[in-house]
Amino acid sequence: MNLILLSPNDLLTDNRACIKNPRQLAHIKQVHGATVGDQLKVGLINGNLGIGLVTELNDTAIYLDVDLHQAPPRALPLTLVLGLPRPKMMRRILQTVATLGVKQLHLINSYRVEKSYWQTPFLEAENIREQLILGLEQGCDTHLPEVHLHKRFKPFVEDELPAIVADTRALVAHPYTETACPCQIEYSLTLAVGPEGGFIPYEIDLLEKCNFEAVQVGERIMRVETAVPYLLGRLF
Amino acid sequence: MNLILLSPNDLLTDNRACIKNPRQLAHIKQVHGATVGDQLKVGLINGNLGIGLVTELNDTAIYLDVDLHQAPPRALPLTLVLGLPRPKMMRRILQTVATLGVKQLHLINSYRVEKSYWQTPFLEAENIREQLILGLEQGCDTHLPEVHLHKRFKPFVEDELPAIVADTRALVAHPYTETACPCQIEYSLTLAVGPEGGFIPYEIDLLEKCNFEAVQVGERIMRVETAVPYLLGRLF
Repeated sequence: MNLILLSPNDLLTDNRACIKNPRQLAHIKQVHGATVGDQLKVGLINGNLGIGLVTELNDTAIYLDVDLHQAPPRALPLTLVLGLPRPKMMRRILQTVATLGVKQLHLINSYRVEKSYWQTPFLEAENIREQLILGLEQGCDTHLPEVHLHKRFKPFVEDELPAIVADTRALVAHPYTETACPCQIEYSLTLAVGPEGGFIPYEIDLLEKCNFEAVQVGERIMRVETAVPYLLGRLF
Repeated sequence: MNLILLSPNDLLTDNRACIKNPRQLAHIKQVHGATVGDQLKVGLINGNLGIGLVTELNDTAIYLDVDLHQAPPRALPLTLVLGLPRPKMMRRILQTVATLGVKQLHLINSYRVEKSYWQTPFLEAENIREQLILGLEQGCDTHLPEVHLHKRFKPFVEDELPAIVADTRALVAHPYTETACPCQIEYSLTLAVGPEGGFIPYEIDLLEKCNFEAVQVGERIMRVETAVPYLLGRLF
């Protein structure tokens, strides 16, 4: 963790914090090897970045004088729509998305998403939040992404997606098209990425009716957790 | 696995193959649910892609008539130099590198690489090869990357790296520089990416003496397994 992310509950006053989260305590002590007088890079969830000076450290808490003066990095002008990944990959993808600066993530059903994936405890709000915080701590950002779950493809695409894509360019990653994915764009984007195996033609058709353009990044078929950073590196 | 990669030993004749690898057998039977008469996408390690027609299938072997007529995707014009990742991440990174079309990978020591990482069984030639094959099967490519191990940073950079970077542009990903990483390049590249925590200034200096330019991709600090696809998506 390159940043210690404080929750509003950790703030005693505007410039005084007390960390009690066991994961963060263990990390600060064991990895940073912090002692009284050390400075740590801290941030407030959905707030600023800054510096925390360790003033007291015991078995159950670390007290910091904090100065939160620096704005977090700019969010990507992106809404990411992702076929629900298999549970094994969920944590990694949530972390990656948070690290890379995505702030709007829609996890959606698709023909090739196994129904059982929707049952995973990784989709409980608390577990999602935990992975997003880990991703933000890696990427040195404070703004929690919003994650939305959509268990039915067609109603989502027909009833909700038009409002989401309004005023953005909308792209869907699809190996079976000639159009190359653009790069280094400057505008707001909605990007859809299918599950392992991709969207089926019927789903691509529905997305195209919703103003999505199908684009490809070459012949190689990537796992979703590789495709997401690959596409974002190219696009932004 | 989007491709079944045959080893030369699997070929009985130029157009007849017998697969006995238990992992591949299980996958073909359980995931593809293949039966006699089915066509599978196959490739020959370091050879062509094509189609395999299942002619016989039993508990220990699958026989195929194969037609290997299609060239594999173009290799990236890239040599990747990577600080040795922690063992937990080694398999994923080897797979990713193979999926993305990297053909030359140098895993190197660095100040922030823990010495114990060099002891992992994942670095044994057979285990590296296994992960590379999984990555090629994902990416539908046949050409095995070459992986080189360098346990000492300075001798590698001073004695071996100059010949590697000759006739290429050389970049090192480094958060602490103003220069932005280029995108969509057309030339041959050597790209160095540090371990978690990055290269130390002394190492950056040595790389710069070897004609590397330090480039950054923004404020966010990524894990190596995220940074590699992110950089390659941007560069190629």
